[in-house]
Amino acid sequence: MKDQLDKPACNCGIVAIFGQEDAAISAYQALYALQHRGQESSGIVSSDGTSVYRHTGMGLVNTVFSDIKVLRSLPGDLAIGHNRYSTTGSTILSNAQPLLVNFKEGPVALSHNGNFVNTRSIREELVQDGAIFQTSSDTEVVLHLMARSREIDMASKMRDALDRLKGAYSLALLTRDRVFAVRDPRGWRPLSLGEKQGAYFVASETCALDLIGANYVREIEPGEILEIGADGLVSHRLSETAERRACIFEHVYFSRPDSKIFDENVDRARRKLGKNLAIEHPADADIVISVPDSSNTAALGYASRSGIKFEIGLIRNHYVGRTFIHPDQSDRDFNVRVKFNPVEGVLRDKRVVVVDDSIVRGTTLRHLTKMLRKAGAREVHLRVSSPPIISPCYYGMDFPTTAELVASGQTIEQIRMHLGVDSLGYLSLEGMIKAVSEDGGFCTACFTGNYPLVPEKSATKLLHEDAALETVY
Amino acid sequence: MKDQLDKPACNCGIVAIFGQEDAAISAYQALYALQHRGQESSGIVSSDGTSVYRHTGMGLVNTVFSDIKVLRSLPGDLAIGHNRYSTTGSTILSNAQPLLVNFKEGPVALSHNGNFVNTRSIREELVQDGAIFQTSSDTEVVLHLMARSREIDMASKMRDALDRLKGAYSLALLTRDRVFAVRDPRGWRPLSLGEKQGAYFVASETCALDLIGANYVREIEPGEILEIGADGLVSHRLSETAERRACIFEHVYFSRPDSKIFDENVDRARRKLGKNLAIEHPADADIVISVPDSSNTAALGYASRSGIKFEIGLIRNHYVGRTFIHPDQSDRDFNVRVKFNPVEGVLRDKRVVVVDDSIVRGTTLRHLTKMLRKAGAREVHLRVSSPPIISPCYYGMDFPTTAELVASGQTIEQIRMHLGVDSLGYLSLEGMIKAVSEDGGFCTACFTGNYPLVPEKSATKLLHEDAALETVY
Amino acid sequence: MKDQLDKPACNCGIVAIFGQEDAAISAYQALYALQHRGQESSGIVSSDGTSVYRHTGMGLVNTVFSDIKVLRSLPGDLAIGHNRYSTTGSTILSNAQPLLVNFKEGPVALSHNGNFVNTRSIREELVQDGAIFQTSSDTEVVLHLMARSREIDMASKMRDALDRLKGAYSLALLTRDRVFAVRDPRGWRPLSLGEKQGAYFVASETCALDLIGANYVREIEPGEILEIGADGLVSHRLSETAERRACIFEHVYFSRPDSKIFDENVDRARRKLGKNLAIEHPADADIVISVPDSSNTAALGYASRSGIKFEIGLIRNHYVGRTFIHPDQSDRDFNVRVKFNPVEGVLRDKRVVVVDDSIVRGTTLRHLTKMLRKAGAREVHLRVSSPPIISPCYYGMDFPTTAELVASGQTIEQIRMHLGVDSLGYLSLEGMIKAVSEDGGFCTACFTGNYPLVPEKSATKLLHEDAALETVY
Amino acid sequence: MKDQLDKPACNCGIVAIFGQEDAAISAYQALYALQHRGQESSGIVSSDGTSVYRHTGMGLVNTVFSDIKVLRSLPGDLAIGHNRYSTTGSTILSNAQPLLVNFKEGPVALSHNGNFVNTRSIREELVQDGAIFQTSSDTEVVLHLMARSREIDMASKMRDALDRLKGAYSLALLTRDRVFAVRDPRGWRPLSLGEKQGAYFVASETCALDLIGANYVREIEPGEILEIGADGLVSHRLSETAERRACIFEHVYFSRPDSKIFDENVDRARRKLGKNLAIEHPADADIVISVPDSSNTAALGYASRSGIKFEIGLIRNHYVGRTFIHPDQSDRDFNVRVKFNPVEGVLRDKRVVVVDDSIVRGTTLRHLTKMLRKAGAREVHLRVSSPPIISPCYYGMDFPTTAELVASGQTIEQIRMHLGVDSLGYLSLEGMIKAVSEDGGFCTACFTGNYPLVPEKSATKLLHEDAALETVY
Repeated sequence: MKDQLDKPACNCGIVAIFGQEDAAISAYQALYALQHRGQESSGIVSSDGTSVYRHTGMGLVNTVFSDIKVLRSLPGDLAIGHNRYSTTGSTILSNAQPLLVNFKEGPVALSHNGNFVNTRSIREELVQDGAIFQTSSDTEVVLHLMARSREIDMASKMRDALDRLKGAYSLALLTRDRVFAVRDPRGWRPLSLGEKQGAYFVASETCALDLIGANYVREIEPGEILEIGADGLVSHRLSETAERRACIFEHVYFSRPDSKIFDENVDRARRKLGKNLAIEHPADADIVISVPDSSNTAALGYASRSGIKFEIGLIRNHYVGRTFIHPDQSDRDFNVRVKFNPVEGVLRDKRVVVVDDSIVRGTTLRHLTKMLRKAGAREVHLRVSSPPIISPCYYGMDFPTTAELVASGQTIEQIRMHLGVDSLGYLSLEGMIKAVSEDGGFCTACFTGNYPLVPEKSATKLLHEDAALETVY
Repeated sequence: MKDQLDKPACNCGIVAIFGQEDAAISAYQALYALQHRGQESSGIVSSDGTSVYRHTGMGLVNTVFSDIKVLRSLPGDLAIGHNRYSTTGSTILSNAQPLLVNFKEGPVALSHNGNFVNTRSIREELVQDGAIFQTSSDTEVVLHLMARSREIDMASKMRDALDRLKGAYSLALLTRDRVFAVRDPRGWRPLSLGEKQGAYFVASETCALDLIGANYVREIEPGEILEIGADGLVSHRLSETAERRACIFEHVYFSRPDSKIFDENVDRARRKLGKNLAIEHPADADIVISVPDSSNTAALGYASRSGIKFEIGLIRNHYVGRTFIHPDQSDRDFNVRVKFNPVEGVLRDKRVVVVDDSIVRGTTLRHLTKMLRKAGAREVHLRVSSPPIISPCYYGMDFPTTAELVASGQTIEQIRMHLGVDSLGYLSLEGMIKAVSEDGGFCTACFTGNYPLVPEKSATKLLHEDAALETVY
Repeated sequence: MKDQLDKPACNCGIVAIFGQEDAAISAYQALYALQHRGQESSGIVSSDGTSVYRHTGMGLVNTVFSDIKVLRSLPGDLAIGHNRYSTTGSTILSNAQPLLVNFKEGPVALSHNGNFVNTRSIREELVQDGAIFQTSSDTEVVLHLMARSREIDMASKMRDALDRLKGAYSLALLTRDRVFAVRDPRGWRPLSLGEKQGAYFVASETCALDLIGANYVREIEPGEILEIGADGLVSHRLSETAERRACIFEHVYFSRPDSKIFDENVDRARRKLGKNLAIEHPADADIVISVPDSSNTAALGYASRSGIKFEIGLIRNHYVGRTFIHPDQSDRDFNVRVKFNPVEGVLRDKRVVVVDDSIVRGTTLRHLTKMLRKAGAREVHLRVSSPPIISPCYYGMDFPTTAELVASGQTIEQIRMHLGVDSLGYLSLEGMIKAVSEDGGFCTACFTGNYPLVPEKSATKLLHEDAALETVY
Repeated sequence: MKDQLDKPACNCGIVAIFGQEDAAISAYQALYALQHRGQESSGIVSSDGTSVYRHTGMGLVNTVFSDIKVLRSLPGDLAIGHNRYSTTGSTILSNAQPLLVNFKEGPVALSHNGNFVNTRSIREELVQDGAIFQTSSDTEVVLHLMARSREIDMASKMRDALDRLKGAYSLALLTRDRVFAVRDPRGWRPLSLGEKQGAYFVASETCALDLIGANYVREIEPGEILEIGADGLVSHRLSETAERRACIFEHVYFSRPDSKIFDENVDRARRKLGKNLAIEHPADADIVISVPDSSNTAALGYASRSGIKFEIGLIRNHYVGRTFIHPDQSDRDFNVRVKFNPVEGVLRDKRVVVVDDSIVRGTTLRHLTKMLRKAGAREVHLRVSSPPIISPCYYGMDFPTTAELVASGQTIEQIRMHLGVDSLGYLSLEGMIKAVSEDGGFCTACFTGNYPLVPEKSATKLLHEDAALETVY
């Protein structure tokens, strides 16, 4: 699991499909390709034009949909799906998405990737007005606002509801006969449109379109409500306009390198991060190694620009899962050792540049450094392809508290000593932004504390659970 | 499962507990004792005064709570529980009860046994007003009405909501610090109060109080809202007053013979049914046997009054469960044979009175009759300790359609021929009522078609699902 | 589970089928009907004439064969099956039967019901000769002896092997193209032959034949090896001849009342036990009740002979399974209460005769007596339809140690006081034997200590495990 | 799973532990690190000096030992373990290792990695002599031979047995108080000894020692029986002496790059394979990519020697498991697409060298080539870091039949056309051998057809199953 690797937790993946026979099967494939964006629960809602079908469960896509019979019980040409990593709302089945409710117009299902910042007061208002909440997720707020809208058509209901909400979100919504895809006005989270033989596919990342075999068409625009029905595509706009504030961490770490997000190849951006890192923080070393797999591309970029040889110095065990038993809790290094094993023949007597994409607590890197030295590395020079993380994210990433961040309130030299490396270099904010885009338009709040949207007071993860609602799975 | 035995399906069991350490464990025990009232799903919500905890699942109580860790994760001195047999609403996990939602006053959980007859229009009205429904169960309607009530305290909210609803129901409701028990104005479904060392227990049948070790105090009154909190018991009244219309089928078949319901021992009533049957329909026979286990007591009553010897002529296999595989669908008798085996030594060359408590489709009895004859019975005289079932129930029992009822539109002689028995006698309506109570006050709609409350048009089981909501488990 | 009811544990059920399409399905049905003879593990081996297929698992028949695909993976017209309750050998999957091994003649599978008394020395001898044992069950000894036999045909190999072994056993053996059924020379355990449309069925009890729809043909004779192949039935004889020593406890408790064993209806014998008990130990009482279900027939016999009315005074909960959680270990009565609930309306102010078929430790009865009194019984007169159990069984029944037997070393009066009843009467040995058969020929060792076959020293349950072999499931 | 990637199936991993508290936990960790050597079943046998405990199951190590309670039920300081990939013997639980049997000296457990070539005749001989086989695995033959040995001590029994057997094997054996490790006289399969604080650890690869935290001591020698007991290490020798014939495929593909086998770092050998490949088959290209993950190191070697830039052109999805549902069987490319996604930004308009370590059927590579071209690759130059595979392996690797091998009977040009690549170069036999060792001593039978040991006729995978033994899990 990603968080075990001392990375921020990812912020869900969504998908919507229209006009594809057995749409649930394509949704399953897309969710499978988006597995890295959420491993807690998974779900699909499909429609055959008359009835709407839902299946959700805890665990990986393969676990939730381990039986072809389950997929066959989700008939129809329309579907939306969701992989969830808990952000707002705790780890429980009733929070699994897509949510499915009954409107007067019929069943409506909704998948949600991201986070709202002003749901607290709106939720309060709704509750005062007699609304009842069955989950602690923000998604239910959207549905309540839509249900209370006076607008007639679904797209207008959505605009009505979303005009009241602020935040970072990508949504997929399904009714009996159409699907909708929405992105917030700042375009925080990625969302792409694909096409294959007249069928349409919307997914958080293009790697899902690739697996389905669909061709990339374009991004859903920031502030766009894209409606897909039998009569084709119709584009609506949210009322609010704002400057683009795409999450730069998607390029740094979240998205798969084979995806295109924000109209840019992740792979290209990530390599550039490594190159800029090499320019800013050269090293006098023999080899460059990566902390696999997320830092591979940046490490190649560093190696290429610095002229230092790229080597595979750490082997990652891909069989690690949630169920691994760590019997001896006193063996602190074991958690890291079970994931990574150093390649002694590569490291022995070498001065090693280690490239990692980001550091949260620093726990993994401290153990890795010890491990590398034990395997014979003479020097360890850590290079990080993003700036120090110092502030929480209110837009969909799950960090530890600020106090737990290794970079919070420490100088670079203090961090270096804490990690036990010979030298330490973080990519500068400027170097990072330049690597990703010429034009800017990114949210860098976790590195800078500059928040494009200020959250309501105490927008903590369990915000809506102060009402003391807890469901045990 | 009961319905496989050609009986109406039972209509759920509920429980509420206040002031008992580890209330969830007592709720588990009570639900276990009420297993016969619903085998589809089971659930418990507990409260420790601060937070509220929920666990529900598909299957028997023992399956849903197979791990002590699950019970331990439901802390606190308050709990409500539910065993569900689907009546309104289809067989899906999201319909599992208790429901748990957030009010502005905090979390509220609700368990529901019975059926409303006018939710269709109210649901429509709520939906027009922007309410969204996440389940197809009536229980959600109660919660929506409560949430919209202008009343301040919870008991008044309940009265507000229930004054608008008509039907047959017993309810258990939990907030952070109190539980409530309600029975409809006609007292359709049983609900009893027990006490043990200062803790209070409410359950559909007293056999649950027995297992817990609580002493029976009294019935919850028809039309009563009983509030149980740290300050003791407070009794509120619903606005509507009406004559008692207790479900007579509870005495005929549903309730356990060791329970006391409607202030009467089921065992005593059931034995009296058998005696009256013997008076009305004597038989010239050698032995009396029962269709075990539900008809045992009535058969004893018949034997005692008629002077004919009671024998055990059918052995019932209690290992039968849902998972039994019937590989050869062409073997129609197999379904009956797997549940019952005749005792040849008892039956050979005997004239046999078979006592059954009720007949729905007649399929089981037709097979049983063939089986008894094959085992040597010379004559088979069927005696039924209730009148012919001719009409659907709108108050919580699950029957097949009228056309499938063996007694619908057929004379007794036609039924006798259909079942292949030598003689057939049904207890008269009068004989049944007298057996159960001196004072009357029972609903006999399924035998007479006289409905104390007329349901809205097309109040079929899937009423609220015409909106095409379907959730796959 | 039976042992939780303070009864000796049953001693396995076996089945063999020849000439029936999809024989595994019939085996499954037969094992299902024999579930009461063993709930620990279940297994089937089938043959399609070319290959031999096996599936075994821990738990009830319905659990082990919960998926029709498993039964479909056991093709062919021949099958043998087994329900196991651990006697010799501990509770582990590798002891699940049927065993399947390769002989030079091809695959051979064996199911075994009963116990040998001289395997210790033979096992030793085999091991000295280089045999290796993979289970701790006696069944493997039979197979080793057969494999080492110089005889050519399988029936002779069986005779060769079994002539060396002493004990109480019924066996079912399968090769690629035939099945065999064997009963020990004393005919300790029941085993019957049935027929249906040219196919043959062998089962421990006839209730299995009933469920399959096969007609009872005859018992497998004591000392008979019945070979069933394409050319019909061939009967072989073991060398040893001995007087019949059928287990009388089969009639007292083990077998189902709807079965015929030892050529006698269990029901008839059991009723006679009750009648003789009434003659020997009359009571001045108002009602007779049974400890359900195993004592029902004896209680009817008692009631019929004594003229005292039979009533249902205890309701048994049939949902109890292994998984039931008893959270409060200090509540000693709970284990009994969860299985039985008294019917107060029946018991109040009554002098009650309680009929039970046998008593082992007495724990359940002591709790039941308290429960009956609490429900209002004025007097409790316990009548037991068999003599006091004082000695261990070496022939397939699982008792607690002698010291734990309530009747061991105590007078009737001491037992009465221990159980807290007003009077206590056990059926005499003579009364029991006369009830079951005119001719005698029964083993009564557990009541008398007279052992037809003396076991080797220390033939304890874990005999072969002193070699320290333990397999965890 | 590896075979789905068109590679030969791996040949099991074994482990033995002596003197380590909670040895089963260390065995679990070691097996976890050896997961790549067998994913079908896993098992551990432990000893506490008195009793011996066993647990085996189907699936990954994490699945079989998903509950700490299972590991806690395997107490003691001695343990052996096994990961199985079926070679001889079919995919069934009863073939799961370690096997555990009872000798006259007590319990003996055995784990086996490799394959014997002359068990057919010996098995026949044993069966004629009355031995019975319960599995279809060769391991049971070893145990039968040992049980029949006249030697007194266990090491001599092992020599006695193994002197009769020919083949490629590494063994781990456990008795109550000692463990043994054996390697065949040619040293076919790797097996290493480690030490940590006085405890000894034997494992197929050193990556298992690394995870445990043990220090590498030395290889178990070809022909050595290493006995480990309370009195330390004793080394015995098998009678046969032979030239070393280590499996070169272990270096090419099987072993993890972070392991040391045959006293050589896999990583170093694999990089050299890539370098020699670059010398023999240069390419006029822009980038070098690997088929991840097994070819990464060879690709780096190729890139480094050729001076062409190494890039990550394919992303591998590590969530793929056995349970993945491929709903549309007509979509042939899907199986490959679900495992690999091309990185378009890297490939677009590039001339690409693809390095793979070996080719079996060629199916995956054909699909990959299409995928690379679709992603924009202008030219695809395939380089394989081992020679064409043309012959079956009788020593523990699982290949398809010769007819299915893409290189069987085809010229390089024919293969090139079949795969659809622009050029194709296989490393020469000489180039491969030189890369791995100066001294030779390797088995190259799968590349050359030169078999160091000729197998008995028809030593097919299901050799011992022609006796038609089949066990369904």
